Amino acid sequence: MNYLDKIKPRVRELRAYTLTPDRGSIKINQNENPWGMPAKIKEESLRRLENRAWSRYPDFVPASLHERLAAYAGWKPDGIVAGNGSNELIQALLMVTIGEGKRVLICEPTFALYRQVATVLGGEITSVPLTPQLTYDTKAIHEAVEEINPDVTIICSPNNPTGCVMKDDDLAQLLDRSSGLVVIDEAYFEFAEHTVVPLLERHANLVVFRTFSKAMAMAALRVGYLLAEPSLAREISKAVLPYNLNAISQTSAEVAVEMYERELQPLVGRIISERERLFVELRIIEGLVPVPSQANFMIVRSTVEPRRVFAELLRHDILIRDVSGYSMLKDYFRVSVGTPSENDALIAALREIF
Amino acid sequence: MNYLDKIKPRVRELRAYTLTPDRGSIKINQNENPWGMPAKIKEESLRRLENRAWSRYPDFVPASLHERLAAYAGWKPDGIVAGNGSNELIQALLMVTIGEGKRVLICEPTFALYRQVATVLGGEITSVPLTPQLTYDTKAIHEAVEEINPDVTIICSPNNPTGCVMKDDDLAQLLDRSSGLVVIDEAYFEFAEHTVVPLLERHANLVVFRTFSKAMAMAALRVGYLLAEPSLAREISKAVLPYNLNAISQTSAEVAVEMYERELQPLVGRIISERERLFVELRIIEGLVPVPSQANFMIVRSTVEPRRVFAELLRHDILIRDVSGYSMLKDYFRVSVGTPSENDALIAALREIF
Repeated sequence: MNYLDKIKPRVRELRAYTLTPDRGSIKINQNENPWGMPAKIKEESLRRLENRAWSRYPDFVPASLHERLAAYAGWKPDGIVAGNGSNELIQALLMVTIGEGKRVLICEPTFALYRQVATVLGGEITSVPLTPQLTYDTKAIHEAVEEINPDVTIICSPNNPTGCVMKDDDLAQLLDRSSGLVVIDEAYFEFAEHTVVPLLERHANLVVFRTFSKAMAMAALRVGYLLAEPSLAREISKAVLPYNLNAISQTSAEVAVEMYERELQPLVGRIISERERLFVELRIIEGLVPVPSQANFMIVRSTVEPRRVFAELLRHDILIRDVSGYSMLKDYFRVSVGTPSENDALIAALREIF
Repeated sequence: MNYLDKIKPRVRELRAYTLTPDRGSIKINQNENPWGMPAKIKEESLRRLENRAWSRYPDFVPASLHERLAAYAGWKPDGIVAGNGSNELIQALLMVTIGEGKRVLICEPTFALYRQVATVLGGEITSVPLTPQLTYDTKAIHEAVEEINPDVTIICSPNNPTGCVMKDDDLAQLLDRSSGLVVIDEAYFEFAEHTVVPLLERHANLVVFRTFSKAMAMAALRVGYLLAEPSLAREISKAVLPYNLNAISQTSAEVAVEMYERELQPLVGRIISERERLFVELRIIEGLVPVPSQANFMIVRSTVEPRRVFAELLRHDILIRDVSGYSMLKDYFRVSVGTPSENDALIAALREIF
């Protein structure tokens, strides 16, 4: 007997989402904070953890973190759910809403996980392409909402991997026109210096996702959170597993929020100014056209095949992301904004290649 | 518009699984390792983490941990999937197998999460009660398998909260008779000094779950793993989110496995002998009937209402679990096996109450 028959056919058809384990000293392939976690945050986290028994379960629900996040984000503590990375929370939201015949609207190219999880759950996915300028096609999105009446619409803003954002006015319209939930994945909002959280007050169908893996410099620890109307947050929580957030990550996240302004915000400022410098420098290299981005990365159109750029840069010990497999992006690669010296090395290597 | 309409009705009907946040100096309510994580494991974990950048993502798949677990458990590395607690892996297995109309067989009373997750996913749950002696009713289980032909059968062995085990012969028969997958949750196997892993070799429909939260003394860090035929493990992995295991938990789990024999196994031995002592001591208290258990806890039938026993013990600063809300267990409470002095305190307090 072949027990793989018990696996849903749509799962068997899925190719697992993987990442090749290439290594480079200059690692600008995952949009991490190149400055690392500030020593003061790490030290204070470890200090608080020293007397904590590792053999004891973490909090059933990380209430003390929820309270700090509420103050930080300007929202209600009972409208916040923290999890093991925002991925887990995206999955929880889709688990409580999506089954056979339910409709999910996404805009592509975007973060691959939305499609993956919605597919596992049996959702019907409608994908609205970005404009040829790789920005959100608001008109097409509104038309698609009208036509298919999605149960859930997911927008990544700033978008990974293109860096485009949806404007507040367009989002407010989308929220008004949608009878379903609208998710804004704000993983990179710090680099756009803009949040849609104020829209939560007037739009009960908005769910905002955030992460500690980018600006907060904590990718190793896996922390994310969502913000929504408390009654909606409570329903999504039912698919969040108890004790989902380990004690170390919870404690470190609390410390990071407490010390954000002094320790992390200045790093975000430096990343933003480096992004602008990198954009200008790349634009003057013949054969490259960087795309304006509101995040801590940008995609770059290249006359040389992206796969070859990837390989050549790896020879310079620089690891970037080849995004040429994404729809619309066959001529593009993606670079995260690094430290000034990392960006200098990237620029020098690209000048040599082009 | 009420956007809660977008939540699946079966989710809205669910009561969220919660735990009251009572505190007691003697905490014997969650079956944790009362000895704590050995200092050597904690120190070595922190040493390895010191030079690790917390701002960088963990491994896409924790391959180095999988290899150590394979050697430790006696199974193939590509048949192992580690996750953020075994809860996450139970959810992943159900996500790739269960949807509307799919059938899940469980035996109750048992760990509440199986029913919770299967319900969210739309599964039809058949529950076979334990025998009046609170052991697995093998005959009834085989009949139910015959009758409903479950897609997934989940057995917790040793069972939480009763401590009963399914014998290998009975399990082998269950595996042979099942055209679906059979899950054995081995969260407490160390305390039974028995594992069903050798059955994996001949039964491609068996999936074994294990955790680091009990014998391994790492509940705060949330690590679990599953063992299955590699082709099946690969399919389940598709519902496991990338980077699901944070870097600190992964590293600590590797250290715990490396040091298990010297640092943890002796503690397991002590817990087992304390379990036997506690059983004998409780049996001689009039009004109490402890149930034999193969785990690091036991349930106790009580002539005094369990809720009252819970409250009285809390006044003695002892936190136990009131399991009287479970089917068949209205007269029972559950205690984890603590250190000798913790068990002494429990026995003294119960003598006072009864």
